[in-house]
Amino acid sequence: MSSDTKIACVMVGLPARGKTYIAQKVCRYLQWLSVSTKVFNVGNYRRKLHGAHQMHSFFDPNNKEGEIARREAAAEALKDMLRWFEVENGTVAIFDATNSTRERRTFILNHCKKQNIQVIFIETVCQDENLILQNIMDVKLSSPDYKDMDPEKAAEDFRARISHYEEAYETITENDFTYIKLINVGSQVVINLIQGYLQSRIVYYLMNLHIMPRSIFFSRHGESIFNLLGKIGGDSDLSPRGRKYANALPKLIHENLGNQPLTVWTSTMRRTIQTSEQLPYPKLQWKALDELDAGVCDGMTYEEIEERYPEDYANRDEDKFNYRYRGGESYRDVVLRLEPVIMELERQQNILIVGHQAILRCIYAYFHNLPHDELPYIKIPLHTVIKLTPKAYGCAEVRYRVEIDAVDTHRPKPQPKPPKPVINGNSISSSNLTNVAS
Amino acid sequence: MSSDTKIACVMVGLPARGKTYIAQKVCRYLQWLSVSTKVFNVGNYRRKLHGAHQMHSFFDPNNKEGEIARREAAAEALKDMLRWFEVENGTVAIFDATNSTRERRTFILNHCKKQNIQVIFIETVCQDENLILQNIMDVKLSSPDYKDMDPEKAAEDFRARISHYEEAYETITENDFTYIKLINVGSQVVINLIQGYLQSRIVYYLMNLHIMPRSIFFSRHGESIFNLLGKIGGDSDLSPRGRKYANALPKLIHENLGNQPLTVWTSTMRRTIQTSEQLPYPKLQWKALDELDAGVCDGMTYEEIEERYPEDYANRDEDKFNYRYRGGESYRDVVLRLEPVIMELERQQNILIVGHQAILRCIYAYFHNLPHDELPYIKIPLHTVIKLTPKAYGCAEVRYRVEIDAVDTHRPKPQPKPPKPVINGNSISSSNLTNVAS
Repeated sequence: MSSDTKIACVMVGLPARGKTYIAQKVCRYLQWLSVSTKVFNVGNYRRKLHGAHQMHSFFDPNNKEGEIARREAAAEALKDMLRWFEVENGTVAIFDATNSTRERRTFILNHCKKQNIQVIFIETVCQDENLILQNIMDVKLSSPDYKDMDPEKAAEDFRARISHYEEAYETITENDFTYIKLINVGSQVVINLIQGYLQSRIVYYLMNLHIMPRSIFFSRHGESIFNLLGKIGGDSDLSPRGRKYANALPKLIHENLGNQPLTVWTSTMRRTIQTSEQLPYPKLQWKALDELDAGVCDGMTYEEIEERYPEDYANRDEDKFNYRYRGGESYRDVVLRLEPVIMELERQQNILIVGHQAILRCIYAYFHNLPHDELPYIKIPLHTVIKLTPKAYGCAEVRYRVEIDAVDTHRPKPQPKPPKPVINGNSISSSNLTNVAS
Repeated sequence: MSSDTKIACVMVGLPARGKTYIAQKVCRYLQWLSVSTKVFNVGNYRRKLHGAHQMHSFFDPNNKEGEIARREAAAEALKDMLRWFEVENGTVAIFDATNSTRERRTFILNHCKKQNIQVIFIETVCQDENLILQNIMDVKLSSPDYKDMDPEKAAEDFRARISHYEEAYETITENDFTYIKLINVGSQVVINLIQGYLQSRIVYYLMNLHIMPRSIFFSRHGESIFNLLGKIGGDSDLSPRGRKYANALPKLIHENLGNQPLTVWTSTMRRTIQTSEQLPYPKLQWKALDELDAGVCDGMTYEEIEERYPEDYANRDEDKFNYRYRGGESYRDVVLRLEPVIMELERQQNILIVGHQAILRCIYAYFHNLPHDELPYIKIPLHTVIKLTPKAYGCAEVRYRVEIDAVDTHRPKPQPKPPKPVINGNSISSSNLTNVAS
């Protein structure tokens, strides 16, 4: 909201408490909302400076050499973070390291204060041994530190590394610091001195995360009458082939989910409601899931738009994410109106969204962390179910194509225009060309 | 979202810690969002059963008679609350009392559990003596308990009442309970075992409340070209009189605020941006503040709508809050899209919103707790600044009319139709009437 806000989210916690998972999620969420965000992972600096494959003794607080090396890595990461705020005008940095002592946290805070950077400490506390073990198995053993090592040995070494940190660990009790403490994956949350819009958004997002296994299914509505006519927008009914797709959906979903619970979300438009009609699950209509509003172009074909609004048509292809239809919306607008949907998706378990092309592109981009310039060209074909399953980092994806034909509504990104003609090493501007031609 | 959720928010805290303030705010917020919500204030039951003007000795834990009477009041309120869930199908009840012992909280929880009602305990802890004193002065001394009493004496009695409660007070440490603890007006917040959409909304709302003094100013855009033509919607420029209003605004605001900081929020439409152009404050454009989307009727006059869509026109007057324009929005839709604006308004200090008629009606209704059937008829005239100043309960209001003429865009609620003709004691349905006429 205000462009001079700078926030450093400083992770705090023992190894295998999900710090990197949280750092990545927060980064993805903020980037999707167009907030300039970057993660600084001290482990990566350590590996770059001192090589991977450091055994647990490296992390022993009594190992002077190890301690100096680890401090060096942290200092390097901190320097880069401060530079990033200064030079690249970043908004939110996430400093991903254990930061497990009071002294270390004060050190970081003081450096940030000098540059007017607000600091939120994000501490993850986990007392559930099984969860920690699972995290070690899922994530840590595939980390660069343990590449090509016997998993049993790696797990043992990693547990030894944790116990080195445990010796020196001090949980946050600094009540003059801004912090959020997530205890046992959010079952208890402590929030201290949070202020400002962006801090509050980050905290609310963190409150809503869970790590229970689940899947998110996307489907566009079945082919509509407007799809057949090549028209955009409107609120038309399904075509006969679209109805066939609606009839085929329940079997596909049931084969996939069995008797697991599911909730179906649709927009308030006829074509998504009709598509979900046969599905035997609880349903919810979201106005926020309605298709991108094409304003004055609603109900037109692309050819009609090109004819009536040739300049707008060209502008849209220049920067499709930011182009706002006259009296309508841009993809950027749609992302903002989808924010509550994303928040609710994070809270829920199995969900099927029966939606629209532009809407599903925005949601899909969130889960796969795709940049805004690619977002409006993501392929979300008709008569296809996309299944996303969140994993430790990122999502696994499977696509199920239903064998019922439908029109193709995807318009590829136009090829870059040919370079301007060059005469005697100077490019000619279009006004020059006009002069030449006239 | 799901209609079978039932939540009891059970307040916990010593007297004068802002429990009733919070109870009222949460109630107003949820009612505005169409969640069926009701406050059950045990103090009101006590006064009804045992009379007002009870002196502090009534609250002494050693006063057996007093204790029995207070328990009776609490039991009566609890019974009514449980009945309300059962019979009136309520969604969120707020049980406003001190509930300061573990035994009392367990008692309430067990009763609610039997009826499948989720319980959130909301504890307010305040260690700032000045804040407590201010609360006593602002609120308690004007309460029915101290009507017509000397303020000095009343304050003394009230402090004695507090100390009776302090003797027995047990802060929440029951970690198997769902609770939120607000410490020193939200400077620290502890959240335990919160789950589900509605619980999470309530918690987020509570996190964002503050009690710093401030004002919220509303102004519609200056008169627009479409206002002159009697057309709705569109994105037209200001009329000459509208521009005069824009020129007059800065002086009016400055006379009111002096050098206090202010932020100006506009929609993304030309008429609100032009109206705020001369204001020397930071500005923010919100897409969510754009005028209610009139869909196919955008750009028409009311006469044209009546002619082209006579049935829609009539339906709209029947239930204006719920009527959704074809391809557009209803007031209900607008309330939902304004929810993030309200949340941000709660967080901010002085704000001037330069907005639109329907939008300002929705926001105004939130601050004055007006019901949904009145909301679409609230008078928000052109060329008028409305200043709201939040007080302990509700808002103080001042209106400043700028002496520049403008069209009147207010359409009053139509008079109820005359009763149907009755023949022989039976009312005639409209189809009967058609038969008679044909």
